Amino acid sequence: MHDSTRIAHFSDGVFAVAITLLVLDLRVPATANGSLIGALADQWPQFAAFAVSFVLVGCIWVNHHEVFKTVTYVDRPLLFLNLAFLLTIVVIPFSTSLFAEYVVSGGSQAGTAGALFNGSMLLMGLSFRAVIGRAHRGQPHPARAKGFGAVIESLPLAVGPVVYATCIGLSFVSAPVVLILDAALAAYYVFGDVIAREPAA
Amino acid sequence: MHDSTRIAHFSDGVFAVAITLLVLDLRVPATANGSLIGALADQWPQFAAFAVSFVLVGCIWVNHHEVFKTVTYVDRPLLFLNLAFLLTIVVIPFSTSLFAEYVVSGGSQAGTAGALFNGSMLLMGLSFRAVIGRAHRGQPHPARAKGFGAVIESLPLAVGPVVYATCIGLSFVSAPVVLILDAALAAYYVFGDVIAREPAA
Amino acid sequence: MHDSTRIAHFSDGVFAVAITLLVLDLRVPATANGSLIGALADQWPQFAAFAVSFVLVGCIWVNHHEVFKTVTYVDRPLLFLNLAFLLTIVVIPFSTSLFAEYVVSGGSQAGTAGALFNGSMLLMGLSFRAVIGRAHRGQPHPARAKGFGAVIESLPLAVGPVVYATCIGLSFVSAPVVLILDAALAAYYVFGDVIAREPAA
Amino acid sequence: MHDSTRIAHFSDGVFAVAITLLVLDLRVPATANGSLIGALADQWPQFAAFAVSFVLVGCIWVNHHEVFKTVTYVDRPLLFLNLAFLLTIVVIPFSTSLFAEYVVSGGSQAGTAGALFNGSMLLMGLSFRAVIGRAHRGQPHPARAKGFGAVIESLPLAVGPVVYATCIGLSFVSAPVVLILDAALAAYYVFGDVIAREPAA
Repeated sequence: MHDSTRIAHFSDGVFAVAITLLVLDLRVPATANGSLIGALADQWPQFAAFAVSFVLVGCIWVNHHEVFKTVTYVDRPLLFLNLAFLLTIVVIPFSTSLFAEYVVSGGSQAGTAGALFNGSMLLMGLSFRAVIGRAHRGQPHPARAKGFGAVIESLPLAVGPVVYATCIGLSFVSAPVVLILDAALAAYYVFGDVIAREPAA
Repeated sequence: MHDSTRIAHFSDGVFAVAITLLVLDLRVPATANGSLIGALADQWPQFAAFAVSFVLVGCIWVNHHEVFKTVTYVDRPLLFLNLAFLLTIVVIPFSTSLFAEYVVSGGSQAGTAGALFNGSMLLMGLSFRAVIGRAHRGQPHPARAKGFGAVIESLPLAVGPVVYATCIGLSFVSAPVVLILDAALAAYYVFGDVIAREPAA
Repeated sequence: MHDSTRIAHFSDGVFAVAITLLVLDLRVPATANGSLIGALADQWPQFAAFAVSFVLVGCIWVNHHEVFKTVTYVDRPLLFLNLAFLLTIVVIPFSTSLFAEYVVSGGSQAGTAGALFNGSMLLMGLSFRAVIGRAHRGQPHPARAKGFGAVIESLPLAVGPVVYATCIGLSFVSAPVVLILDAALAAYYVFGDVIAREPAA
Repeated sequence: MHDSTRIAHFSDGVFAVAITLLVLDLRVPATANGSLIGALADQWPQFAAFAVSFVLVGCIWVNHHEVFKTVTYVDRPLLFLNLAFLLTIVVIPFSTSLFAEYVVSGGSQAGTAGALFNGSMLLMGLSFRAVIGRAHRGQPHPARAKGFGAVIESLPLAVGPVVYATCIGLSFVSAPVVLILDAALAAYYVFGDVIAREPAA
């Protein structure tokens, strides 16, 4: 019996702060006489992880935006599910920073960092799924394809969790490859969505 | 004679920033060759305190949301009471960090930190009570049970202050137990509310 | 020809972030074996400056809220004046931290810090005055007392700038006294306003 | 098919956080016995870069405000273009801090820092152009001057990118001169706009 405006505003605030705090992981290097370009280049994991996290969180915001656009009835379970989801958003600047710091360390350190980053992203995806489920409870589903068409249609929704879950294990094999896979996922979200949904635009 | 929209937005902004700043207390550990999992596990008080504070602040936000939903008339005393309340919200990242740092120190240090954390939470609860009182001034009370029913109904409202006040003293006996009690309170707020208010949902 | 909603939202966001960043000046002390209460007590200037700045910024927010409530026409000069005003708001966490650090240093250091803190507050007050002037341009003034009544009525508006300007000079005599005066001004804004405007509430 | 309100709110949140984080680059100096004024004066590049970035971001916000005021139809490509634009906004506290740290270092360090600062500003301007293009797609253009008048009218839009691009190269000659040019651009945005658009106000 709550309106959805304020929950959207609060969520937007958390998204905006979390996405902007990502920049705190970019540090101004102290280089007495050395090359500033070289010192910045040494920070490439920070820049890469910053960009990947920014796009992944941004895409989630776009989808959150879309979910709450059609919600007219916000009950307390939805408020609390959304809070749990926002908890996973708030953690991202930390897990991003951790991944960036250890992605090139190799061994179990890189594995742990990559697994925690992708694990937190997986939790974000799953809790967002729970938010969507509650938000659309009782609403008629949009027209859906059946049979093989339905499988094709639900693929984009499954891509994120599958990639994150795979990356958790893969982190212990090669963390840099995992970072590349996460970047590819971010690119898929941006360009895949645009292509799929605006075919003739 | 003010509308309640902008006070809600400003409060949401403060809530969003404060709840997101909690993450700054999670630090990327520097471990030359050691175990990253071990180094993170050593930070368990930070993770526990982060989660507890996030949920407690989140629950307060849910309730703040509900109070201002029904407010149509915002006078200056309400604006200033709300500011005092927001002051206690803004302090939480600090008191959380303090509690996390000293909860396992034992002795008077852990006691002081636990007492300050729970004391700041108690102040938050009491100032929120004052906000509610002013916001609902002159409004007809919602239908209330009488006698024994009224006691039962007002229990949830009393739980927070009673737990916080108890924890202030208890901190000097065992700060980790206090952290567990605070976590239990957070769980009660989330699941108790959901169960109580949406019985047949 | 702009609506005033979005300028209010952006301003609220800046206010919310700036007022919450004030908490970053409260540090968790590192005390190996010493007294935690003692270590926190040593930080009293930080706590005092935090509270004073929070209330002063909060009062300005309340007044900003009130000014934009009645604004229907936002032109570009008003947008830019408001930006200049927000610049002075954003600086406050810095000038507060500076004042807190040096208020008990004595000598020219305390004087410089106190003068910069009160100078930045004075700039904030003057730029806010400019915002009000532009916002109410062309609007009929509310009914005003004449003669001696007008002097009495305009007193509250003059109090802030007069106190800040006095404190700039006074900082070089006694910075702690200046901090007390700033606290008294904050109290005057909260309780004076409430008393003056809600006489029979 | 999205409404433009929430995209504006989210953008405002990111603008507000990014513009306020700029203040974190102003540091309280530690001066045992020395002159506090002297220690602050040594930070002049931080103060100058803070002010320039604040005004440049503020002007972009004013223009963003104006663009979305007239947008009624937000599609997914616009959401993603706006995200890319916000990425360049979020980076500004970092590039500002970098420029301030190295502007007086001279040589290739100052050149690199200045080029990165102006390069990030150029990217911001170009991505904002892309946002405008998508936002106004299909809308009738406002009445435009033809011929020589059109050249004059489009000058202000070209000034930013031209200055930023010039400054990228010029950074390797003299970074302080680049900082002065950026400051002049900020002043042009504020006062040029006001003069040009409110001629008889």
